[in-house]
Amino acid sequence: MTTSTNLPEHPRDLRSLIRHGDFTGITAGVAPGYVQTNLAILPRDVAFDFLLFCQRNPKPCPIIEVIEPGKVEPKQTAPGADIRTDTPKYCIYRYGELEAEVEDISQYWQDDLVSFLLGCSYSFENAMLDAGIPLRHHEQGSNVSMFITNIDCIPAGIFSGPMVVSMRPVHHSKVVKAVQVTSRFPDTHGAPIHIGAPEIIGVEDPTKPDLGDALEFKDGEVPVFWACGVTPQAVAMNSKPPLMITHSPGHMFLTDLRDQDVSVL
Amino acid sequence: MTTSTNLPEHPRDLRSLIRHGDFTGITAGVAPGYVQTNLAILPRDVAFDFLLFCQRNPKPCPIIEVIEPGKVEPKQTAPGADIRTDTPKYCIYRYGELEAEVEDISQYWQDDLVSFLLGCSYSFENAMLDAGIPLRHHEQGSNVSMFITNIDCIPAGIFSGPMVVSMRPVHHSKVVKAVQVTSRFPDTHGAPIHIGAPEIIGVEDPTKPDLGDALEFKDGEVPVFWACGVTPQAVAMNSKPPLMITHSPGHMFLTDLRDQDVSVL
Repeated sequence: MTTSTNLPEHPRDLRSLIRHGDFTGITAGVAPGYVQTNLAILPRDVAFDFLLFCQRNPKPCPIIEVIEPGKVEPKQTAPGADIRTDTPKYCIYRYGELEAEVEDISQYWQDDLVSFLLGCSYSFENAMLDAGIPLRHHEQGSNVSMFITNIDCIPAGIFSGPMVVSMRPVHHSKVVKAVQVTSRFPDTHGAPIHIGAPEIIGVEDPTKPDLGDALEFKDGEVPVFWACGVTPQAVAMNSKPPLMITHSPGHMFLTDLRDQDVSVL
Repeated sequence: MTTSTNLPEHPRDLRSLIRHGDFTGITAGVAPGYVQTNLAILPRDVAFDFLLFCQRNPKPCPIIEVIEPGKVEPKQTAPGADIRTDTPKYCIYRYGELEAEVEDISQYWQDDLVSFLLGCSYSFENAMLDAGIPLRHHEQGSNVSMFITNIDCIPAGIFSGPMVVSMRPVHHSKVVKAVQVTSRFPDTHGAPIHIGAPEIIGVEDPTKPDLGDALEFKDGEVPVFWACGVTPQAVAMNSKPPLMITHSPGHMFLTDLRDQDVSVL
């Protein structure tokens, strides 16, 4: 078993370890500077609606790559990879119910499956750290706080539901900078969706998250909310598709893209 | 007939005129400050591939809205509009051949048609003018120059083909500014795709366009190239779908979005 202290740095080498069962852990902090993605795999007959849902709701559902029906290689962002084996851990859902958590989905594969790679917040969090904005959930060694808002996503076909957001406490002197640096990453959730009056988006108490962990607020810090990649999975699950495969939380798919490749300006 | 001197300013009122056959002209310069769009209407069975093609090639094919199969109202960007009647002029193509040019497509409508509204360059051209960058094709009263490049779009299903670009001569002192201001409009073609060595993208002579009109170059001006909305239509036509409906060149669909609504930063 490879431990995190002697991991290779390039995603290609990490995916090879993952493929052979030699790395099955969470991917936070591995391959720093490279884009990691959420994974959602759905049957073709609902894929148009899901693609349209993502297109209509780009902040929670930023598309990094879509692999065509039955194909397993993300040619644009991870050439040579196999989406069935190269994610550390997967969840198999049937009609919205978790059936299994596995390290290889080859036995579940069907020729009509369409794989969606969706941006995750690691890219803009790196940019925040670079800009001198500390991240409380890193300091606490915990998950980010997440809230189910009263903001309805724009529906598409069978897919609809509320937007899930992540929350980071930011010192008031850094709020503008936080908007600026995350705006540069529209493909990994981008600029905040709310600052200033949490109750308006249905968040009564920013210290009591619906998902993830509670985060401490220090003097002068305000809660800043970003659209969260949990949204598309939650929305897809709501529709109870016959089969849906996702990454297991924290066990992201590693692409060869660098953070700079998905930034603007 | 309403002339351009006494046109209403709001797109909603203009669409009403268009619907009743009282405005059938080109839309350049009307409803200034509002987003105009290219239109591509395709049968549902190729819509997933086309949506995926646009997602993979966002610079030539920036999606403003996709209307679900059989539906005719662009709810997000032009509530109350009817896509069958509210564009000044349409082209009807069967298997890639132009069959008719009409002002109303009601008689061609099918329940499986999916309508794509795609960004056009008017929004970033307004931003260029605001930034003090003159536009030669406006000065000449002509069309922008367009070139078929040697850059292959990323294929998706049945759709593939070269990228078509528009070219604007820009004084060398304004090139950086031109990059900056157009970068703010990723949904209307965004930043240039090429500056500096036209032959590399297959353009032998910037004064001899493949489409549109030739533009004069003044001293110190360099050709700057942007991805062009003609690309998705050309690519779709290549695939010879049984039915495809587009706007007639220059006769765009007017949305209620303002240019600021599609800008970043």
